[in-house]
Amino acid sequence: MIRVTVWNENVHEREHQGVRDIYPDGIHGCIAKFLELDEEIVAKTATLEMPSHGLTDEVLENTDVLIWWAHCHHHEVSDEIAKKVQQAVLKGMGLIVLHSGHLCKPFTLLMGTSCTLKWRDNDRERVWCCNPGHPIAKAIPEQFEIPVEEMYGEFFDIPNPDEVVFLGWFKGGEVFRSGVTFTRGRGRIFYFQPGHEWNPTYHIEPVQKIITNAVKWAAPTCRIDEIGCPNTQPLEK
Amino acid sequence: MIRVTVWNENVHEREHQGVRDIYPDGIHGCIAKFLELDEEIVAKTATLEMPSHGLTDEVLENTDVLIWWAHCHHHEVSDEIAKKVQQAVLKGMGLIVLHSGHLCKPFTLLMGTSCTLKWRDNDRERVWCCNPGHPIAKAIPEQFEIPVEEMYGEFFDIPNPDEVVFLGWFKGGEVFRSGVTFTRGRGRIFYFQPGHEWNPTYHIEPVQKIITNAVKWAAPTCRIDEIGCPNTQPLEK
Amino acid sequence: MIRVTVWNENVHEREHQGVRDIYPDGIHGCIAKFLELDEEIVAKTATLEMPSHGLTDEVLENTDVLIWWAHCHHHEVSDEIAKKVQQAVLKGMGLIVLHSGHLCKPFTLLMGTSCTLKWRDNDRERVWCCNPGHPIAKAIPEQFEIPVEEMYGEFFDIPNPDEVVFLGWFKGGEVFRSGVTFTRGRGRIFYFQPGHEWNPTYHIEPVQKIITNAVKWAAPTCRIDEIGCPNTQPLEK
Amino acid sequence: MIRVTVWNENVHEREHQGVRDIYPDGIHGCIAKFLELDEEIVAKTATLEMPSHGLTDEVLENTDVLIWWAHCHHHEVSDEIAKKVQQAVLKGMGLIVLHSGHLCKPFTLLMGTSCTLKWRDNDRERVWCCNPGHPIAKAIPEQFEIPVEEMYGEFFDIPNPDEVVFLGWFKGGEVFRSGVTFTRGRGRIFYFQPGHEWNPTYHIEPVQKIITNAVKWAAPTCRIDEIGCPNTQPLEK
Repeated sequence: MIRVTVWNENVHEREHQGVRDIYPDGIHGCIAKFLELDEEIVAKTATLEMPSHGLTDEVLENTDVLIWWAHCHHHEVSDEIAKKVQQAVLKGMGLIVLHSGHLCKPFTLLMGTSCTLKWRDNDRERVWCCNPGHPIAKAIPEQFEIPVEEMYGEFFDIPNPDEVVFLGWFKGGEVFRSGVTFTRGRGRIFYFQPGHEWNPTYHIEPVQKIITNAVKWAAPTCRIDEIGCPNTQPLEK
Repeated sequence: MIRVTVWNENVHEREHQGVRDIYPDGIHGCIAKFLELDEEIVAKTATLEMPSHGLTDEVLENTDVLIWWAHCHHHEVSDEIAKKVQQAVLKGMGLIVLHSGHLCKPFTLLMGTSCTLKWRDNDRERVWCCNPGHPIAKAIPEQFEIPVEEMYGEFFDIPNPDEVVFLGWFKGGEVFRSGVTFTRGRGRIFYFQPGHEWNPTYHIEPVQKIITNAVKWAAPTCRIDEIGCPNTQPLEK
Repeated sequence: MIRVTVWNENVHEREHQGVRDIYPDGIHGCIAKFLELDEEIVAKTATLEMPSHGLTDEVLENTDVLIWWAHCHHHEVSDEIAKKVQQAVLKGMGLIVLHSGHLCKPFTLLMGTSCTLKWRDNDRERVWCCNPGHPIAKAIPEQFEIPVEEMYGEFFDIPNPDEVVFLGWFKGGEVFRSGVTFTRGRGRIFYFQPGHEWNPTYHIEPVQKIITNAVKWAAPTCRIDEIGCPNTQPLEK
Repeated sequence: MIRVTVWNENVHEREHQGVRDIYPDGIHGCIAKFLELDEEIVAKTATLEMPSHGLTDEVLENTDVLIWWAHCHHHEVSDEIAKKVQQAVLKGMGLIVLHSGHLCKPFTLLMGTSCTLKWRDNDRERVWCCNPGHPIAKAIPEQFEIPVEEMYGEFFDIPNPDEVVFLGWFKGGEVFRSGVTFTRGRGRIFYFQPGHEWNPTYHIEPVQKIITNAVKWAAPTCRIDEIGCPNTQPLEK
């Protein structure tokens, strides 16, 4: 079983009826629910307002893949927890960062860049696959439409990704590297752009399938306890 | 001085007045002309109908960067010359492949993939830069418009590029990796998508600047005479 | 079940008692045997001397991952079959190329480069992992020794790999990118350097584990029947 | 002219006569001196003990390429200056990190990983080129020896580099990705492993040539003042 923790800022859902109408259980609840339809996955949730933001050492150690959604409250995540998430990834935990999570502390720490981009509410997106043999693209159509979605446009200030799996087209004239993979330490990372809180993006079937695929792709094949810089003896004399 | 050879199929310009009106000296003539405005570049041309397609051993040995435009007559390029171009790149020559050259023999030999894509005439393109620090993007705006251009859409069946420098947005709803780099052997390769023969694309200033930048980027820093597979003695006993 | 076809030139084993002593069932037989110890894998074999080299359309269509070992008889593989293997990879089939297979027709067609390298018999190798979180490195020690192995040294004329998973150290003073991955079309490719026919390399446990891991990693997630270059209608009006 | 600032911790040279004997002007002085032999380069130096470690805003703004050598005093570099260096790279400044600089704050901030490795004093290294067409490898032999050098061995916990240019072989049995490139924001980064303070590594000719080449490769082609996340208007209505 792949043990997923879906982390959510969980502020918009509590403050805005319009968001709550779309995600009555929160974005985290919605994602955990569709993930659990897959027999290989068990999903728990954690949110900003919980002690340690719900990300205690025990939770991180028992998480194979962490999913991160956040938007306006990145600064409220403690530096200590953000660093623990970064370390957990380097030790092997998978990480999936969604939409406005591009500016969250764990992602920017792992990328080392500003992760800035262009944005605009209420555009229309088409998500194109440019790596159809990739495990994350399994059973995904060559393109699908998101009728209303926030535009995220280039230049997206991320390191050269290991792989670009999806490209986003926006009606207003922009393009975006919407699905990209990275390896950091022993951990695999997938960033996926769709998912504005005011749009029912996580109810769209290919979006759910992509996130489910990404969980399987990011599940650890190696996990270590300590990262060291050892002084070693020669193997050859 | 960087010695460029601009190769062109040169069929549309001779057969269609509409194309000749846009490129009275041929696409090759147009490109050679704007390249020579740069003090570091000297440009010659070669075309399909010339003996050896204008690509004799002597020409290839004296070419630092070869630019290739072609469309409907790829099959008329001899396999022998195509392989010589491939070998010249592996030995260090730069190669810039333009637009419908994506299916030309030297490029498909060097890529090893089908290099197929989606296409449609008479769309509108916006070229976005997604690697603004790249030498090929020097002094290029963050995006520019090509009012009429052939749509090329994903999936573009190329190997994972070393770098994606430009992404194309098309009004009809498609996206494309429009400017991509590869290293093959000692040679550097840049593929650039714009340039349909019925549209005045190569008269657009940022397009000219991109091709000029690419020539400088692809100019060899190492060139070898022979490729071998030597049986070597140990360096350590 | 992952359906593997292990292809072998199968010449050295028939001509040299010394090789036959190491691999009484041929290198192909040895590899098929250890692969079948894995419950998810079924393995068949095919060899050069069979009609169509054992690689009929039906065999290729029913192969998820093709493993290729060859050495001195690359030129005896027909161009037609080599191209069919290339096409099968582009359509999604996985390919694992072993040792002296670096110069085989399917691999060089897919790479587009010379795939040349330095070499010398009877050296000692240490295989180091430089991507410990990669699925192909699962449960592989950080380094292991191959007491006698043919040296393969840089410069290895391959395209920039998607990932370098293993690096080889040789007693004589050379290094090599010994385990590298590529994506071509829908297909995943792994090249692995160890495996000289006069050394019992494929009896070494981590070598067997790496090849088994690679089979699982290269198994298709997407497979298509035809590769086309379609003229498409706009999605947006 | 390319304006280089060579930054050095400058502690070992002051504390140990043995190091001072090798580098009477400090490692920074040695590097600045050989760089200035190139007509395109002007080089200044800065050290840890200077106010702001010699890296004021004015210095950073007037530096095209920053070279960083450090070893045991990474923690004495202020977080503020380290972040300024990171930001300067994202805005376009080139960065060359040498040897034990792998653990310095600016590099680990830009990489997002632990940058840990294996190490051992007093080994012998051979540096192999595995990307001979790369500008940083210009005029470098296929391999060269460093008679005494600190061993740095894999696993080197860095992100998948854009390019691996050099691989290190060590007599004791280890290998290392000794010369690797990254792009971060608009900036280009080169990490180069050789250079232990007790060995005269920076007096070796190919080492000097590699660093000189890297300066030219990392010189900015684009430099921005501010990094933003703009809310933009649609280009298309």
